[in-house]
Amino acid sequence: MHLTFVQALELCGTIAFAVSGATAAINKSYDLIGLLSLSFITAIGGGTIRDLLIGATPVAWMTNELSNSAILIAAIIAALFFSYIKKLVRLLSTFDAIGLGMFTITGINKGMAVGLPLPICVALGVITGTFGGLLRDVICGEQPILFTREIYAAASIAGGTLYLLTGHYTGLSGDVAQSISIAVIVAIRLFSLHFNWQLPRLRG
Amino acid sequence: MHLTFVQALELCGTIAFAVSGATAAINKSYDLIGLLSLSFITAIGGGTIRDLLIGATPVAWMTNELSNSAILIAAIIAALFFSYIKKLVRLLSTFDAIGLGMFTITGINKGMAVGLPLPICVALGVITGTFGGLLRDVICGEQPILFTREIYAAASIAGGTLYLLTGHYTGLSGDVAQSISIAVIVAIRLFSLHFNWQLPRLRG
Amino acid sequence: MHLTFVQALELCGTIAFAVSGATAAINKSYDLIGLLSLSFITAIGGGTIRDLLIGATPVAWMTNELSNSAILIAAIIAALFFSYIKKLVRLLSTFDAIGLGMFTITGINKGMAVGLPLPICVALGVITGTFGGLLRDVICGEQPILFTREIYAAASIAGGTLYLLTGHYTGLSGDVAQSISIAVIVAIRLFSLHFNWQLPRLRG
Repeated sequence: MHLTFVQALELCGTIAFAVSGATAAINKSYDLIGLLSLSFITAIGGGTIRDLLIGATPVAWMTNELSNSAILIAAIIAALFFSYIKKLVRLLSTFDAIGLGMFTITGINKGMAVGLPLPICVALGVITGTFGGLLRDVICGEQPILFTREIYAAASIAGGTLYLLTGHYTGLSGDVAQSISIAVIVAIRLFSLHFNWQLPRLRG
Repeated sequence: MHLTFVQALELCGTIAFAVSGATAAINKSYDLIGLLSLSFITAIGGGTIRDLLIGATPVAWMTNELSNSAILIAAIIAALFFSYIKKLVRLLSTFDAIGLGMFTITGINKGMAVGLPLPICVALGVITGTFGGLLRDVICGEQPILFTREIYAAASIAGGTLYLLTGHYTGLSGDVAQSISIAVIVAIRLFSLHFNWQLPRLRG
Repeated sequence: MHLTFVQALELCGTIAFAVSGATAAINKSYDLIGLLSLSFITAIGGGTIRDLLIGATPVAWMTNELSNSAILIAAIIAALFFSYIKKLVRLLSTFDAIGLGMFTITGINKGMAVGLPLPICVALGVITGTFGGLLRDVICGEQPILFTREIYAAASIAGGTLYLLTGHYTGLSGDVAQSISIAVIVAIRLFSLHFNWQLPRLRG
């Protein structure tokens, strides 16, 4: 099997999302079914909601054997070697940021392919990148990290908007514009983690 | 931009639903992402579930620029002027009741347009009018207001059923039947709030 | 109305699922709207998610009058005679196991009909049989039974895999392979209840 660079990046993101689902399942003392379900839902939930909203069925993950195998293996490895895996914070954060970037751009591209207005395409990118984690938290009965902590969706919105602007106002090819935008999303996300940036919380 | 009376009523409802999502986000001390997400999910969630169930994709909100702008502005105004907005209980309740009525009829009409059985059309109307609020509560980790308090879905069912009956048994035009049914839903809802009517709770 | 044996079995499962939703609603002291909504969501949720994922819309339950009537009646009877119904543990467990078996096979058949890979068909069978209960628990704010207790999805996976293997490697007709697989799911489920088998819980 020959893996392109883009596929490798997507795989890194998928694995990080699956491990985050597996971690939540382990923290909740779920069983094997809970482990696998939550890993899959976290990794593919965003893309699934995107596909449902635009009517792209059967949804993408159902025919993505490589991604499904990676999620399965990542979930099981995370459970077997959890005390080791949970120390890889920095690696997993980086993979997770890459996933956020890749999935954002994939979502935007799918939105543009069906002719949706550009702000909706950005929303679709954000949904693709973040709603898997939202589903994970809601199923676990936790307050959504997405709504309460850290620069996460904000990084996706910034990079996604940049992607559309560079595509519209510059002569950059799609590949270059995508690479820049993904790099921006990863950078914002990792800087925000490093410097502990957060959006202000609302007060009643 | 010229706004018809029907569009104006729908907009009132959409704004009320968005403010209810924004209020929940503020009460939970979510951040800006949580504010916008919950406002949108509350306002468009019911219609989105309806569209998904009948296969009307891309779902309606994605191309409804007016509604999306209204939700965005309503959410931000609700957050900026929350101490003022939360005093507008009566106005917001009225707008919310109008939204319940409008969305119920929209859902029923969409169900009839795809040839579904009439009781299912009523169910689709109720889903359109109420499941945005259900999603809001589930995401926030609150017990669903829809299932525990007040005459809300019941008003939608009553008005929706009336709409189908008047359409079937009388010579009333669609517009008149719709107007009567929406008025009935708004009236039941507002009377129930005023007199504090509730459905009895179940006991094990 | 003439009811085939297959329809009768499906009806048993649907009723058991509806009663489980009604029971959750009663335990949460929901009102009549909560009772009906949760009964329907539990009984048809899994099949609805399956249909959405493969794009089979309008989703199946919307035109299944027999099933909808059964859910409605089961929910109301469960509420009216709850102190009696909740004693029927063994009967309801058996009906529930039959539902798990029937819905698993239905899901697999629908997956194969749209040409999905076989492991995904099994996943679709499990989703059909179990995600209604998952929705019930998430809406009620309870930790998902599906992820924490008992051999439930595991029985569905075992029987579903057996179904595909017998179909592939033996000359058994579809009907025979289905019957064997459903019997195996029911048997695993009921034995696991009787002997209190559980999957091991994960520990961090």
